[in-house]
Amino acid sequence: MIDTESVTDLPRRVRADFPILGRRMDGRDLVYLDNAATTLKPRPVVDELTRYYTEVSANIHRGKHRLSETASADFEAVRRQVAHFAGVRGDEVVFTLNTTEALNLVASGLGLEAGDVVLVPFDGHHSNALPWRRHARARHIPVDGSGRVDLDAYEKLLRGRPRVVALSHCSNVTGVYAPVQKMATMAKEAGAVTVVDAAQSAPHGRLHFDDVDFVAFSAHKMLGPTGVGVLCGADGALSLLDPPNLGGGTVDWVDTERYQLRRPPHCLEAGTPNIGGVYGLGAAIAYLDRIGAAALAAHDRALARRQAAEALARPYLRVLGPASPSADRSATISLAIRGVRNLREVARILSDSYGIMCRSGHMCAQPLVDRFTDSEVLRISAYLYNDEAQVARVFAALDEIVETVAAPA
Amino acid sequence: MIDTESVTDLPRRVRADFPILGRRMDGRDLVYLDNAATTLKPRPVVDELTRYYTEVSANIHRGKHRLSETASADFEAVRRQVAHFAGVRGDEVVFTLNTTEALNLVASGLGLEAGDVVLVPFDGHHSNALPWRRHARARHIPVDGSGRVDLDAYEKLLRGRPRVVALSHCSNVTGVYAPVQKMATMAKEAGAVTVVDAAQSAPHGRLHFDDVDFVAFSAHKMLGPTGVGVLCGADGALSLLDPPNLGGGTVDWVDTERYQLRRPPHCLEAGTPNIGGVYGLGAAIAYLDRIGAAALAAHDRALARRQAAEALARPYLRVLGPASPSADRSATISLAIRGVRNLREVARILSDSYGIMCRSGHMCAQPLVDRFTDSEVLRISAYLYNDEAQVARVFAALDEIVETVAAPA
Repeated sequence: MIDTESVTDLPRRVRADFPILGRRMDGRDLVYLDNAATTLKPRPVVDELTRYYTEVSANIHRGKHRLSETASADFEAVRRQVAHFAGVRGDEVVFTLNTTEALNLVASGLGLEAGDVVLVPFDGHHSNALPWRRHARARHIPVDGSGRVDLDAYEKLLRGRPRVVALSHCSNVTGVYAPVQKMATMAKEAGAVTVVDAAQSAPHGRLHFDDVDFVAFSAHKMLGPTGVGVLCGADGALSLLDPPNLGGGTVDWVDTERYQLRRPPHCLEAGTPNIGGVYGLGAAIAYLDRIGAAALAAHDRALARRQAAEALARPYLRVLGPASPSADRSATISLAIRGVRNLREVARILSDSYGIMCRSGHMCAQPLVDRFTDSEVLRISAYLYNDEAQVARVFAALDEIVETVAAPA
Repeated sequence: MIDTESVTDLPRRVRADFPILGRRMDGRDLVYLDNAATTLKPRPVVDELTRYYTEVSANIHRGKHRLSETASADFEAVRRQVAHFAGVRGDEVVFTLNTTEALNLVASGLGLEAGDVVLVPFDGHHSNALPWRRHARARHIPVDGSGRVDLDAYEKLLRGRPRVVALSHCSNVTGVYAPVQKMATMAKEAGAVTVVDAAQSAPHGRLHFDDVDFVAFSAHKMLGPTGVGVLCGADGALSLLDPPNLGGGTVDWVDTERYQLRRPPHCLEAGTPNIGGVYGLGAAIAYLDRIGAAALAAHDRALARRQAAEALARPYLRVLGPASPSADRSATISLAIRGVRNLREVARILSDSYGIMCRSGHMCAQPLVDRFTDSEVLRISAYLYNDEAQVARVFAALDEIVETVAAPA
């Protein structure tokens, strides 16, 4: 297993924990650079899923037999583990299907009225914009030409006394970190409920905020299983939410006329949760904890700098986001290619001829992408098992591909 | 693996496929009789989960790299497999978190108004009552003293032209199958949207209906992983639903003012779904298909008869539901014990002293349980790996326990 001594050899130390990295793609090593979409899973996470299904396998809560009590105790232990990871209390964590559902839960649960103003990030994921647009009047927090939040414009927007300010901690397109702590404090001073989409920052352990009421992220983007999202509500914020779904697990008692809701977080988790997935999330957090947030962040910064340096050195590439390797960015970079509109084809060639998995498209952040390019983009997003040599390899491959694809007929 | 030759030796043939059944509880074989809460998982399901996480591990949709295309193709193949299992078209299956979320999706998506009448089953799960009570005026479809639907009363209720009729195919308390086909046809003739909670019947392959618009069930109650529910909308019914959640995956395009929803089922699946869980559901259905619905149903009937016969032979037990071994029941039976109010303690003794896992409580169907008893109930729910000897063993254990627990101090 891993130790926390060195940052630069992190990929070498962890690679053996990821079975899929032993897979050969037409004779080549697999280079997985689609981590902003979902990460690979280390053996301890898969083992923990298997352990739940082969040794426990019971439903949680209210069951008084031993397997059910084991499942309930383990499930609640992961809840406390997630709370510690996110810097909230043990009863301030709700398990949902994914980040999108967590954000929708807040947007639909706050009792917003059509005239209420909600500020949403222009560089945010659709999942942190559309739910707010559905329930209220959304105003976009603008970004400048390098994808950074325009704080002057933000301050002006706050004078309109928004009911909610929804922030995106780290763009899944540009990799840029927004100054969410400063923005959240400004929003609180303006009297707003504050919500942070941390789907892209939680994998790097950057999760502790002040003045933030709700934080959402997903297990599957941080080494955990699919089907588990997390909503944290700090300092009692969960009690602001009217549960959108009712049913098993949400009530203390029911008669034909009335019912008594359970306290949060339970009233917000309707039906049998993804118990196996929650076990797996516990193993993922334990794995990340063994590496340590400092090592994760240092490795992420090193890869981000290398990505930016490689991209900026190539005149045929256009970087969405800051044109500087030293910006506060995660190792996620999105590129437009001059003279090449079909980025899907580039992603396909990278996959099929080089064994490199990258994503093309609008990245579920179409307003931002459309502002910077009239094509889709190619996104290269790295994580702890990727090294600088792999980043170099994808750019070298792009040099070759672009020569072919962009060549005049 | 299994063959379909014999019904009576089904448990013997499948037991080796369930790793957890090799577990010893204080020197005793594990007897798992909490299947109405969740079932155990056979090796092929656990293996398929592991395969996704160790060989594919990518996110679905829009990714043009090979791992993402594999994940997308496999995910959509399971959707078609589920559709075939449920008797609907390939694009009529929505994956949710669980049955509860599927039912809430319909209740919140139909655009119900507070004055609309929805008929709900008196013997239904809270998850098929509370969502309707929240969005409309719910009227309970009564049951008689043996837990069977009162069809005369139902007919009268239909004259009130309900907007929706929500039915429960099989009670998770009494195990009684409602005549849903007849009831659905009557409801359709009355102009209602029809919804069936099939969480307890899907595990037995009893899923094909006419005149039913929506059917909901859960993977984890039919050998599959936790965190995957299914909502089927037959004959275009999904298009009746306004998506409750918006975000990634639900839209074709977005600008700052407008967005274009994708067609169902995609607009109803917001964010990254439980991809691994869906892989596992595919393996579960394949496993059930190999056994065959006829063998499953015959085995279920045999166990149901044995449960009823054992229970009815004991004067100290009160059966919630029909006092006849030949009723159309699934092998789920709920019992009150004369002179014993603390059923939790009975469940705990069954677990800790006999290795038998049963559930106690109100079974998330409190109006029904409260009508028949002033205590909680003890529920014994069997599935394909349980045999008649195990059913006999739990009742023999109850004979011993009741002597102790009900004894005067």
